[in-house]
Amino acid sequence: MGDELKKSPLAPDCFPDIPPIDGVTFSSTSAGVKYKNRMDLMLVHLCPGTAIAGVFTKSATRAAPVLDCQAKIGNKSTEGAAIIVNSGNANAFTGKRGNLAVSSIVTKVAQEISVPKARVLTSSTGVIGEPLPADRIIEKIGELKQNLSDSGIKKAAEAIMTTDTYAKGSYAELNVDRKVVKIAGIAKGSGMIAPDMATMLVYLFTDAEVQQPILQSILSDINEDTFNAITVDSDTSTSDTVLLAATGMSKVCVTQENENFKNTLRKVMCDLAHQVVRDGEGASKFVEVSVVGAQHDMDAKTHAFAIANSPLVKTALAGSDPNWGRFVMAIGKSGAAADRDRLKIFFGDILVAKDGFVAPCYSEEDGAAYMRKAELKITVDFGMGDGTFTAWTCDLTHQYISINADYRS
Amino acid sequence: MGDELKKSPLAPDCFPDIPPIDGVTFSSTSAGVKYKNRMDLMLVHLCPGTAIAGVFTKSATRAAPVLDCQAKIGNKSTEGAAIIVNSGNANAFTGKRGNLAVSSIVTKVAQEISVPKARVLTSSTGVIGEPLPADRIIEKIGELKQNLSDSGIKKAAEAIMTTDTYAKGSYAELNVDRKVVKIAGIAKGSGMIAPDMATMLVYLFTDAEVQQPILQSILSDINEDTFNAITVDSDTSTSDTVLLAATGMSKVCVTQENENFKNTLRKVMCDLAHQVVRDGEGASKFVEVSVVGAQHDMDAKTHAFAIANSPLVKTALAGSDPNWGRFVMAIGKSGAAADRDRLKIFFGDILVAKDGFVAPCYSEEDGAAYMRKAELKITVDFGMGDGTFTAWTCDLTHQYISINADYRS
Repeated sequence: MGDELKKSPLAPDCFPDIPPIDGVTFSSTSAGVKYKNRMDLMLVHLCPGTAIAGVFTKSATRAAPVLDCQAKIGNKSTEGAAIIVNSGNANAFTGKRGNLAVSSIVTKVAQEISVPKARVLTSSTGVIGEPLPADRIIEKIGELKQNLSDSGIKKAAEAIMTTDTYAKGSYAELNVDRKVVKIAGIAKGSGMIAPDMATMLVYLFTDAEVQQPILQSILSDINEDTFNAITVDSDTSTSDTVLLAATGMSKVCVTQENENFKNTLRKVMCDLAHQVVRDGEGASKFVEVSVVGAQHDMDAKTHAFAIANSPLVKTALAGSDPNWGRFVMAIGKSGAAADRDRLKIFFGDILVAKDGFVAPCYSEEDGAAYMRKAELKITVDFGMGDGTFTAWTCDLTHQYISINADYRS
Repeated sequence: MGDELKKSPLAPDCFPDIPPIDGVTFSSTSAGVKYKNRMDLMLVHLCPGTAIAGVFTKSATRAAPVLDCQAKIGNKSTEGAAIIVNSGNANAFTGKRGNLAVSSIVTKVAQEISVPKARVLTSSTGVIGEPLPADRIIEKIGELKQNLSDSGIKKAAEAIMTTDTYAKGSYAELNVDRKVVKIAGIAKGSGMIAPDMATMLVYLFTDAEVQQPILQSILSDINEDTFNAITVDSDTSTSDTVLLAATGMSKVCVTQENENFKNTLRKVMCDLAHQVVRDGEGASKFVEVSVVGAQHDMDAKTHAFAIANSPLVKTALAGSDPNWGRFVMAIGKSGAAADRDRLKIFFGDILVAKDGFVAPCYSEEDGAAYMRKAELKITVDFGMGDGTFTAWTCDLTHQYISINADYRS
């Protein structure tokens, strides 16, 4: 499907240059899970001693591979590990057969590349409710092992795409005691995107040395204002997974206090989260919704998502309509504290509304000119306290309907 | 705007025959509030002693007329009363000027038709954030008074339309002690429809004699599973209002225990609620989402709305795609209790999924044939308890985007 869709107008120019991460090798192939003639399977091999952290969808109807991953995260081991991911079929709502499929894939990977089964993590993304043809995957594992390479990350990013219109990757590095620490990541996701989390698969790799509990704490923390701060359509998938693997090969030890590491990781995660929104199904605008001055951060988050998820706000954005009344509506319905007469609404730097009414200096022409941009920033100041939250979303267009009224995802 | 839009394919054949309700007269005119050459103002006169109950939007950014109405509901009086409603402008987020506009309209109506100001209720619907041209309304009040008639209900229903594609009315009667009690209602609403409540204005009239506190209790109660059980786009308006006026002219006294009255009122309210959904912006399908077997009623409601509001469910419905995986996704994300392996999903009478997987007897052809209908019933049995809730919604189509990306509402 991916290749039939036109590349999002909001896509970055190209996939970034990502150098090899010591201790991580990639391999991809075409297993024909559902799509024909395109890559749909990737394998990542992680060196012995790699620590792995994860965050997952909170859906009550989580897919079999997610349940399996969740049970394994936190397992201590000095041995190697593997991540295997297929696109085309989510292995979700597939009953006991779903668990058996995961188990047979895990067993084969463990045998083939000599890692414990408890260190083999799987993800599946694509159609829900159809049995996963595990045999097609299993018969490709030998080939995947043969082709493992430290430069295969871009092809891996391509293999996990579903309705994505471009492969998503990001890279950043930091210096600690004159040594370089690398952080790389790939992601897929474009529809069914909402906090907690999204049809979103994200794999992050670093050569830093991090104790697993610390790695988990850092990942969970940064996830809140990156992948859990984006929404395309308010729908949450049964398969969302973010994994972070730290191989330790740089010999640089990272502790909970290392703000430099956290900021660099946040940069990579934020970049990937934005790339997912920029590939939102049918998106023609990338929109930052910034709430400040709310009573507290939770209220700010509630307001930010009430705006970012409102179909009436998102269709106004699609129509480049500076219809600020719809923002007022969304704020009103959110359920969090708001005082109509203390609200200030900004489009970019333009003050649109204050004191319970349109701002005296505001001109509809200015608002309309701003709204025609492809990258928008909407700020709402509640004038009530210190609560802030920033969410990212896209507009709701005809193309979203076309993709989702026809595509069986 | 209304007249530029094609009538919804789900509309009833025609406006019902509604006989006069003793004690209620109607009048409508064209005040040019925003629209040209169409009716946009209606006045209802209610005879002395009429009891009035109301339920209103819970939006934190409620419009000025809503705040005014809320303050007045419950006022005891043996005098007459009036309801005046304009379309084209919601008088919402209009600051102090909004309150002044309400006050000047109320004062003029009270003078003109000799009722206390505390018994004049106003509603406004249309664009948010533009000052209401109250003078255009005020200068028509004399004319409205002249033309009050007990047969003007259909024209009144037309005058309150915004993006509605048809006027909405309903009527039912009951017998109490060989006397007839009449219940009639009109409504407007098609976009920004969601529980708590909707850009929805509803006016109900009966000639029953009901004490105000009882009338309020009955209205609030029935509102929960009628107007608060519908959703078009999950957006909640700043102006929603449901008023119920009981003139007492039938001389039939109704108490809290009168199930016959409640059922008849429920029938009228349910009919109007369905008519609003059938006029959902861009709707091509009317969908009943029935949740049974949930842990309790609150959970059932949460699940029903998670399904009814999911853009991915609604686009699948638009595409006549029997994509039951999306229902599983919506259930999973709702946050209420669910056990994947105890779920049963039905399309009409067709069992689609059970035991955590597609039902053995289910054929995709049957599902697809069912989904092509214009009226759908989706039932989800959670197999966990006695909780039930039924919600009504419509599909999400290209036409919704067209209406909302262009129309300044």
